[in-house]
Amino acid sequence: METKFQELKNRLLEVNDISSAAGLLYWDQSTYMPPGGAAARARQTATLGRLAHEKFTDPTIGKLLDALEAYEKSLDYDSDAAGLLRVARRKYERAIKIPAKFTAEVANHTSESYQVWTEARPANDFERVRPYLEKTLEYSRQAANFFPGYDHIADPHIESSDYGMKAEDVSRVFAELRQELVPLVSAITSQEPADDSCLHQHFPEEKQLAFGLEVAEQFGYDMHRGRQDKTHHPFMTKFSLGDVRITTRTKENFLGDALFSTLHETGHALYEQGICPDYEGTPLARGTSSGVHESQSRLWENLVGRSRGFWYHFYPKLQSVFSEQLGSVSKDTFNRAINKVERSLIRTNADEVTYNLHVMLRFDLELAMLEGNLEIRDLPEVWRERFEADFGIAPPDDKDGVLQDVHWYFGLIGGAFQGYTLGNILGAQFYASAFKAHPEIPTEIRREGKFSTLHNWLKENLYQHGSKYTAPEIIERATGSPLSIKPYIAYLHSKYGELYDLDGCGPAQWTEMMETWPDGSAS
Amino acid sequence: METKFQELKNRLLEVNDISSAAGLLYWDQSTYMPPGGAAARARQTATLGRLAHEKFTDPTIGKLLDALEAYEKSLDYDSDAAGLLRVARRKYERAIKIPAKFTAEVANHTSESYQVWTEARPANDFERVRPYLEKTLEYSRQAANFFPGYDHIADPHIESSDYGMKAEDVSRVFAELRQELVPLVSAITSQEPADDSCLHQHFPEEKQLAFGLEVAEQFGYDMHRGRQDKTHHPFMTKFSLGDVRITTRTKENFLGDALFSTLHETGHALYEQGICPDYEGTPLARGTSSGVHESQSRLWENLVGRSRGFWYHFYPKLQSVFSEQLGSVSKDTFNRAINKVERSLIRTNADEVTYNLHVMLRFDLELAMLEGNLEIRDLPEVWRERFEADFGIAPPDDKDGVLQDVHWYFGLIGGAFQGYTLGNILGAQFYASAFKAHPEIPTEIRREGKFSTLHNWLKENLYQHGSKYTAPEIIERATGSPLSIKPYIAYLHSKYGELYDLDGCGPAQWTEMMETWPDGSAS
Repeated sequence: METKFQELKNRLLEVNDISSAAGLLYWDQSTYMPPGGAAARARQTATLGRLAHEKFTDPTIGKLLDALEAYEKSLDYDSDAAGLLRVARRKYERAIKIPAKFTAEVANHTSESYQVWTEARPANDFERVRPYLEKTLEYSRQAANFFPGYDHIADPHIESSDYGMKAEDVSRVFAELRQELVPLVSAITSQEPADDSCLHQHFPEEKQLAFGLEVAEQFGYDMHRGRQDKTHHPFMTKFSLGDVRITTRTKENFLGDALFSTLHETGHALYEQGICPDYEGTPLARGTSSGVHESQSRLWENLVGRSRGFWYHFYPKLQSVFSEQLGSVSKDTFNRAINKVERSLIRTNADEVTYNLHVMLRFDLELAMLEGNLEIRDLPEVWRERFEADFGIAPPDDKDGVLQDVHWYFGLIGGAFQGYTLGNILGAQFYASAFKAHPEIPTEIRREGKFSTLHNWLKENLYQHGSKYTAPEIIERATGSPLSIKPYIAYLHSKYGELYDLDGCGPAQWTEMMETWPDGSAS
Repeated sequence: METKFQELKNRLLEVNDISSAAGLLYWDQSTYMPPGGAAARARQTATLGRLAHEKFTDPTIGKLLDALEAYEKSLDYDSDAAGLLRVARRKYERAIKIPAKFTAEVANHTSESYQVWTEARPANDFERVRPYLEKTLEYSRQAANFFPGYDHIADPHIESSDYGMKAEDVSRVFAELRQELVPLVSAITSQEPADDSCLHQHFPEEKQLAFGLEVAEQFGYDMHRGRQDKTHHPFMTKFSLGDVRITTRTKENFLGDALFSTLHETGHALYEQGICPDYEGTPLARGTSSGVHESQSRLWENLVGRSRGFWYHFYPKLQSVFSEQLGSVSKDTFNRAINKVERSLIRTNADEVTYNLHVMLRFDLELAMLEGNLEIRDLPEVWRERFEADFGIAPPDDKDGVLQDVHWYFGLIGGAFQGYTLGNILGAQFYASAFKAHPEIPTEIRREGKFSTLHNWLKENLYQHGSKYTAPEIIERATGSPLSIKPYIAYLHSKYGELYDLDGCGPAQWTEMMETWPDGSAS
């Protein structure tokens, strides 16, 4: 058994190494690659992707998994070996169901589609990319049908990023959330909008980058195993547990961009850096799902980084770095500026309250398209109608409407968006549980800029486990409750109730919720 | 035939892509990788190296080459297809002779040996690394014996980097060169040494880097397909013909380091960037040998970059960048400083005259070790004796003696050094031929800082061909002569004769040589 288990691990390690190299090809392409390298780089990335897939779907891996089935059953469910075998088996069974020929075809198609989209979007020309999107929808339905027996045709897509959740679960959660969000957004946006002009001044890039990184390190981002570079779109990537990198982008005329994208990516990086070192090179060595991953970026970016307590400690530092720009701006004004809520067109620029409405719109349209209830030719019109219904404003064009996100034009339709909102919900849920265990957390942050209690709780209860537990499992284990929108709603009501002086809302709501989380009783 | 040829090319392309990714792993490790990534990176590099080797030595490639043998014979020798088949066959036949198990064993051994050397060198402790070096010598002899039928046991090593040359050829050329160099070095070093104190001032890093890169671009280094970063040891690396990068290092208290290493690596990069784009991804898409490659780094670094004419144009620019440091330093003083000749201990810091004596010493010791005529335990003593004989100074310790170069401690013994001196010789030979075709080259450089005539001649006659021709073939084709030390000797006599006021030497010698090169008659 030992030998077979070792052989399996060796093979998985090989796949991991090839994939890590492919990851570096992408990081380099986004950071330092000269433009002349683009054509060959696309080919090299495809070659390594194909190789990793070939190696992973090698029937020998299937045979090893079969041979190890009895061994796996003999192991404690919580043991690392059992976790490794469980996750490897699940991923292997998924991977072999999709024919390599289909994957290659889709890769070709989506790279053409992406090319056309990069031109169609600035030209506001949905018609141009429509035939590609129709083909993409066909492929997306086909892809789902490699997994017969689903309840909903979107399920196989959702399971690939948020294993353990189905379309029905997500829809139910989203419907609950929607009921709370719509009146909250109305209440907020009927008030005087926050003045965020203090963020729209000239802030030299170097200082922005240095400040963001200082906070990231204070959060606990280990620079011995990390670094930050600039890219067009910020992301986090990992080449090993000893090399977890983030990227950011700066706008010199807007303070919010680099800073909060750094804190967001740092959240992702803390998760990956916190994984148990023994998992290095195995399928366990990554965050367990898109939603749980996003919960960490949102927790550190929003629940921590946009909180009043955080800035109580850090605002004087920020003021001393940008004394000319912020010297005479009060902490309250700054706090309202970074938490400005508004009905806006673009998802990626949206605040933490309205953001979810953007996601739900996309999620619902994805389901309708996959079900066959929404034709691509009707998509722009349906988008506009839904957007107007949800946001009270009509997108003036497709460019900032249905053409705005890269996802559908550079990948399949389905499963790409729900993780963002699941992350918002879960971020609050994890934070509430950390607080319940350590009520001193907000005070430590406020008084000392100290994050280690929060960070350690997250490492202990979430990060270290990597993918050993599925999202539903780890949520239950770490928080004593299945996914629940209650903490998130309490958090939003409390925070925005105070900021916008809403009736019946205030800071106590969130504290009370956390004190009595998850069962309504104080500890 | 077409199908088989295409299949072969596809397989070679796959190998190329894996190797390019491995190259990026190394570049990243040397430039930006956080220290925590080291362990996994070593493993990832080994995995990709093994995969590339496995894919290249796949018997299917052998069968395809066999099937294409008649086709290859039917092709014109100068055709690209014939070149590709010829080079692929040669490399394949070499690769399959070395068992994968042996390669893996050597890789393990050399990485241990390297580790020990990094500690033994600063501790000046040859004894510590001696057993490793003994094992390395054993491996080196074994490696050669996978290629029975050699004339000299060093031949297989030399052929791997300088295909077409054997130990006997190199020894003969080196003996000729030595006869000329020894009296030249004596003559120079009996003069007052040049004063290079003007280079040993404070030169801010940013300005050094910017100036070096400006010259590199003026040489013709295409930044759309290139970039420069900082590393501990400068190098050139290529991920595709559209992505050829250089690295450099700076010392703020010495002007010579970054500038000339940039020009050196630029020479390598110009060669790779100049390869025919049709060769992308094939075994033809790289410089043909170590010696020919080094000829280009040395040509641009020394024959151009350390010439009086070059600085006639560029010195005023350099003075304006470093006006405080160089404003009152005359062009002549600067010119003598950057061409200072001295008997010194360290190869990598040596000037272009004495450098070759360092190389010859190592080359001769390599032959003796491989032949079994020199035991590792006697190596430090023999090194000291030979060094004293050649340089007139005794190395005070092994640290700056036999322990100074990484080569023997991180690779096999044999074939690693001769390319440097072959490069010095060939740099002058190529330059002479370019001059013969375009006598306006030195004037263009001097008057306008214009390099395009020289660069175009090199592209046309050397760079574009990549590996299509072997070193002896391309030397003959491009210069109308086999490798010859005559141009190099004339160049050295002429340049250093003028600088050091030596009897019977002066600038006319080099010009005359070039005007009548290669057959002694003017054109």
